[in-house]
Amino acid sequence: MNRQALIQNIKNKKSFLCIGLDSDINKIPKHLFDHEDPVFEFNKQIIDSTIEFAVAYKPNTAFYESRGAKGWESLEKTFNYLKQFKDDVFTIADAKRGDIGNTSNHHALALFENLDADAATIAPYMGEDSVTPFLTYKDKWVIILALTSNKSASDFQQLHPRTPTFFKMLGIKKYMSESLYETVIKKSMKWGSHNNMMYVVGATKAEKLVGIRKIIPYHFLLIPGVGSQGGSLHKVAHYGLNKQCGLLVNSSRGIIFSSAEKDFAEKAQKSAKSIQHQMKDILKNRKII
Amino acid sequence: MNRQALIQNIKNKKSFLCIGLDSDINKIPKHLFDHEDPVFEFNKQIIDSTIEFAVAYKPNTAFYESRGAKGWESLEKTFNYLKQFKDDVFTIADAKRGDIGNTSNHHALALFENLDADAATIAPYMGEDSVTPFLTYKDKWVIILALTSNKSASDFQQLHPRTPTFFKMLGIKKYMSESLYETVIKKSMKWGSHNNMMYVVGATKAEKLVGIRKIIPYHFLLIPGVGSQGGSLHKVAHYGLNKQCGLLVNSSRGIIFSSAEKDFAEKAQKSAKSIQHQMKDILKNRKII
Repeated sequence: MNRQALIQNIKNKKSFLCIGLDSDINKIPKHLFDHEDPVFEFNKQIIDSTIEFAVAYKPNTAFYESRGAKGWESLEKTFNYLKQFKDDVFTIADAKRGDIGNTSNHHALALFENLDADAATIAPYMGEDSVTPFLTYKDKWVIILALTSNKSASDFQQLHPRTPTFFKMLGIKKYMSESLYETVIKKSMKWGSHNNMMYVVGATKAEKLVGIRKIIPYHFLLIPGVGSQGGSLHKVAHYGLNKQCGLLVNSSRGIIFSSAEKDFAEKAQKSAKSIQHQMKDILKNRKII
Repeated sequence: MNRQALIQNIKNKKSFLCIGLDSDINKIPKHLFDHEDPVFEFNKQIIDSTIEFAVAYKPNTAFYESRGAKGWESLEKTFNYLKQFKDDVFTIADAKRGDIGNTSNHHALALFENLDADAATIAPYMGEDSVTPFLTYKDKWVIILALTSNKSASDFQQLHPRTPTFFKMLGIKKYMSESLYETVIKKSMKWGSHNNMMYVVGATKAEKLVGIRKIIPYHFLLIPGVGSQGGSLHKVAHYGLNKQCGLLVNSSRGIIFSSAEKDFAEKAQKSAKSIQHQMKDILKNRKII
């Protein structure tokens, strides 16, 4: 899906909601085990009940790989099921890959050909040649981890290696510097464009969106961490929206596990609808729709 | 496998060779397509013909995932086949994973329970909570990417964010600093010990092993990049060996694709044997055996 189609879907659905299909087999309703592939059945019902309110779906591959080849089958079936809505929903393989060029080609095959996802999340640690194989696909997107939603994101992503200590040693209190995640954005944005690259910025670090928007005003950002992880939709929208929206805000557990009973799809719909309503108001207030 | 057993295998086999099972279906000999699972058959014959000379096997998951659920089946069969040699060979799932804690638990399930690998490679960008779920498994290892073998490793891993420019601005020519990969090692080594953590250091950056050994004299290092990528075994050994060897040197394409004909296993054996002979001499010269 290209940028224009994505923006049009956001306007049509009045939503920038991405639903994370972190479909842990231990958390899905028990009655689904009557089906041959309970996880796929769960995803299918979640998709059917929420598609009116979501512009994107994001299966995290870990929750499928933990079940081995059978899990990968559920993942394939899920992406295959999503194909019928290919003009209406953007699909993200949340795989957090990244390897040397020769190997990254195979990661791209797995995610962009085998699964036919519109986008894949990539960890930037190995640099440009680990990312470029993904950028050769037309209308497919790379979503680079910049500042993630977890606590330990500060371990490296927000690091200014050695600078503070050294400056303190010199008796200099103020110094110019940037965090690693900013360096990652500044360097990697040159590998592609805002038509084929996005960045992950955790909702739990919403204030950092101000600085990030100065570097990349036009790029789409994938924002996880709203819901179970405690991030605020309104803060994220306040600091992160651009004129064409430019945000995909993800909720996983907060939507898909709204109920563990037979009404799970109905309850998930209610959760998705409630977020979409908030998003509609936000988009209207910002005159995006 | 614990550290003691790994060291004993190195001494018994007079080898610190790891064979990378990057078993690209497009590169394996054509006659194997008579078998139900050509990739598994390829791996089986490679393992059988080289096991005398190798202490570790490292399937890179990308080459399996690119074939979807079927590929993951070949991967499962390969790890399952390696189980019969579980006292003799160390198995590494080269998956380069890393996600928030809740998700990393599922990555650990996939690699340490479903595949039952002895070790998994992990990208450090997301920090401690993305790694710790892997460290809860007894006698299993996390192998953190430190300084990788690819050209773009310098993009971020060897970065001293903003420091040089700023120091130049101040007119200071010499400054203390460290590269990101050193910071990664120093910080992450506290999350576990040399009994459950290793680091990836590319053979193409052998000189950097001097500095790395000052930080982690006892840890095992997994060294890719010998062979097709141009790294030198002798340089790596010179700079990287410690008293208990402390190295697993990987070769993938240079061994497994020694021939694309019916004699592929025989030729792979010849390649593995030749490297093992060099390793035996190195271990003797350094009085490790």
